[in-house]
Amino acid sequence: MNITVAGTGMTKFGELWAASPRCLAGIAVSAAIKDSEIEKKSIQGIFVANMLSGMLGMQGHLGALFAEELGLSGIPAYTVEGACASGGLAVHAGIMSILSGQYDTVLVLGVEKMTDHKPELVSSALMGAGSNEERLAGATFPGLYAILARSHMEKYGTTEQQLASVAVKNHFHASLNPLAQFSHPITIEQVMRSSCVADPLRLLDCSPVTDGAAAIILTKQNKKSSVHIIASQIATDSLGLAGRKSLTELVATKQASAQAFVQAGVERKDIDLAEVHDCFTIAEILAIEDMGFGKKGEVGTLMEQGAYTLGTAERIVVNSSGGLKGCGHPIGATGVKQIVEITNQLRGVCGKRQVKNAKVGLAHNVGGSGATAVVHILRK
Amino acid sequence: MNITVAGTGMTKFGELWAASPRCLAGIAVSAAIKDSEIEKKSIQGIFVANMLSGMLGMQGHLGALFAEELGLSGIPAYTVEGACASGGLAVHAGIMSILSGQYDTVLVLGVEKMTDHKPELVSSALMGAGSNEERLAGATFPGLYAILARSHMEKYGTTEQQLASVAVKNHFHASLNPLAQFSHPITIEQVMRSSCVADPLRLLDCSPVTDGAAAIILTKQNKKSSVHIIASQIATDSLGLAGRKSLTELVATKQASAQAFVQAGVERKDIDLAEVHDCFTIAEILAIEDMGFGKKGEVGTLMEQGAYTLGTAERIVVNSSGGLKGCGHPIGATGVKQIVEITNQLRGVCGKRQVKNAKVGLAHNVGGSGATAVVHILRK
Repeated sequence: MNITVAGTGMTKFGELWAASPRCLAGIAVSAAIKDSEIEKKSIQGIFVANMLSGMLGMQGHLGALFAEELGLSGIPAYTVEGACASGGLAVHAGIMSILSGQYDTVLVLGVEKMTDHKPELVSSALMGAGSNEERLAGATFPGLYAILARSHMEKYGTTEQQLASVAVKNHFHASLNPLAQFSHPITIEQVMRSSCVADPLRLLDCSPVTDGAAAIILTKQNKKSSVHIIASQIATDSLGLAGRKSLTELVATKQASAQAFVQAGVERKDIDLAEVHDCFTIAEILAIEDMGFGKKGEVGTLMEQGAYTLGTAERIVVNSSGGLKGCGHPIGATGVKQIVEITNQLRGVCGKRQVKNAKVGLAHNVGGSGATAVVHILRK
Repeated sequence: MNITVAGTGMTKFGELWAASPRCLAGIAVSAAIKDSEIEKKSIQGIFVANMLSGMLGMQGHLGALFAEELGLSGIPAYTVEGACASGGLAVHAGIMSILSGQYDTVLVLGVEKMTDHKPELVSSALMGAGSNEERLAGATFPGLYAILARSHMEKYGTTEQQLASVAVKNHFHASLNPLAQFSHPITIEQVMRSSCVADPLRLLDCSPVTDGAAAIILTKQNKKSSVHIIASQIATDSLGLAGRKSLTELVATKQASAQAFVQAGVERKDIDLAEVHDCFTIAEILAIEDMGFGKKGEVGTLMEQGAYTLGTAERIVVNSSGGLKGCGHPIGATGVKQIVEITNQLRGVCGKRQVKNAKVGLAHNVGGSGATAVVHILRK
């Protein structure tokens, strides 16, 4: 597989009260098209990633909506949804459409507007990613990930401080990313003192509610100097935690990443940086372990030692963008933003947060409490 | 393009109070797998078409949900949405995934549960397919299609009787289809006497609210005796009617069908039967005209004369299943059901409603008031 990422664009992530979804999409797509140096009229397909527009705003049919809004009416367009993995899934669908021979050049747009709605409504809508049984039981995603965190702590001795160190790292990285939601570094103590959301997860263990959009232009044109996607794999698992064999690993992540390494023909040691799905701090530890960038049960300790932090990382920098925790998590946009970050890192244009000599990167996007996982591998 | 439809399955369409979406999906998929004679474990990808589950039931993430429910957990799966065209779009996405080389065999599942909810809520959720301006103006889909009908009547002299003749034909066809929602034939007089919903459209000009599921197994294995999809094209148009240049044609339908004929290498005269998107009677007349199976402005008269009716059709039978009007319109399932019907017609297994010597068929699925159109061409 060899798909060129011709251009990337994203809005600032954050509480963007003044911006509509259309406005956010316009900013991200204009930036991606400009960056690609490809003419807008070359775009032959549009893949929109979004989860909440229908549930919160009663607006579906986003393919045709954004095609029109972007001045691309007529172009084939549709929405791809798989909860918080929608962005990665839309990238996958875009890639498939090019490999099929149907299109040469496509636009993938992830967009989500979350802060216009009451937090209770957003929380309730997000539970659309979970199982009916979990909703009936009154569970929320912090609660579900708290179960995963507690299981990991009991089995492997992972500590609350180790969880907190994920948030500290990602806020540090975000402080170097001008488009991130949070520009302030935080300390372990601040995380530990923040209010408890779902024991053992505290406020600063949780990714925020965010508005934002991210866009990429994919093409089959093979420019040698560009960044290429060399693997794109999806896997699924039981929707609810009750259906899982283990609460200390996410099987879909293991499966999708294993298949991606085979498809890309690269090994774990070849990966220089990864954007992983840290919707909660425990999720990043699970992701790193399940993809084999650290031994199961040992990543908490490694995290505390700075093994995945810019400047002190030995093998691999994780979430140089700030991740979902620091950069923000506008659901449908997140998986697309991960590709934006990896592409720009491989191009060497990330300024203060640049990972030196980055040649191969990985993006890992999760839906729900792990029921969908999407893994992409990129190479320059 | 040459993708084999290896198996088809669908539930009865109707007001299925006792069946959950999971139950409906299970019935349709089991039937499709059995019909395909392909082992369930050969399925490598699942494409789910649905519009309303999130808006009406707060359940998203249907890819992983149905993968688990169908005993296929682990398999890549996601949801495709483009309003009432979701089914056709999911078929398209499934085809792309096979042509890309990623998968050999995939399942496309369309499912919708509409009758569990208050009609006002369903009507409101369906307006998620339209533009924000239309929603703010208080428009509903019967109202939007009434505007298209009135425009057609004024420009071409199309009559209410001619519109009614579409419903009469489709109820006649549905009466021959044991899985259709409506088993009773109706008369022009009954349509004309039914209550006015949005002038000039009456109750019997409108497709019903329906529960149902449809599934197909697609594979790259080329069995000579099977039915093959030889074209799959999407086009989009302005989301709202206000953005259109004409109110007497749907440009997306024209564009998608024109491209499909080129891709398939067949001409309009080669088509023996078509399933077209008759959400309202005027929609079928527009579809037939816009795809070139009758001259613009003349199809109303032809319809009255039985030119598209089983038994009296000269060139082409339209909506042998009963269409959306007679067979029912469970949103996400409709576009998949169209492929089920065309496939079974080309196999010659449609019993009383069999179109004689059918060799090439077309499926036409529309989202909203015409903002998305998907056209597939199938050949045996």
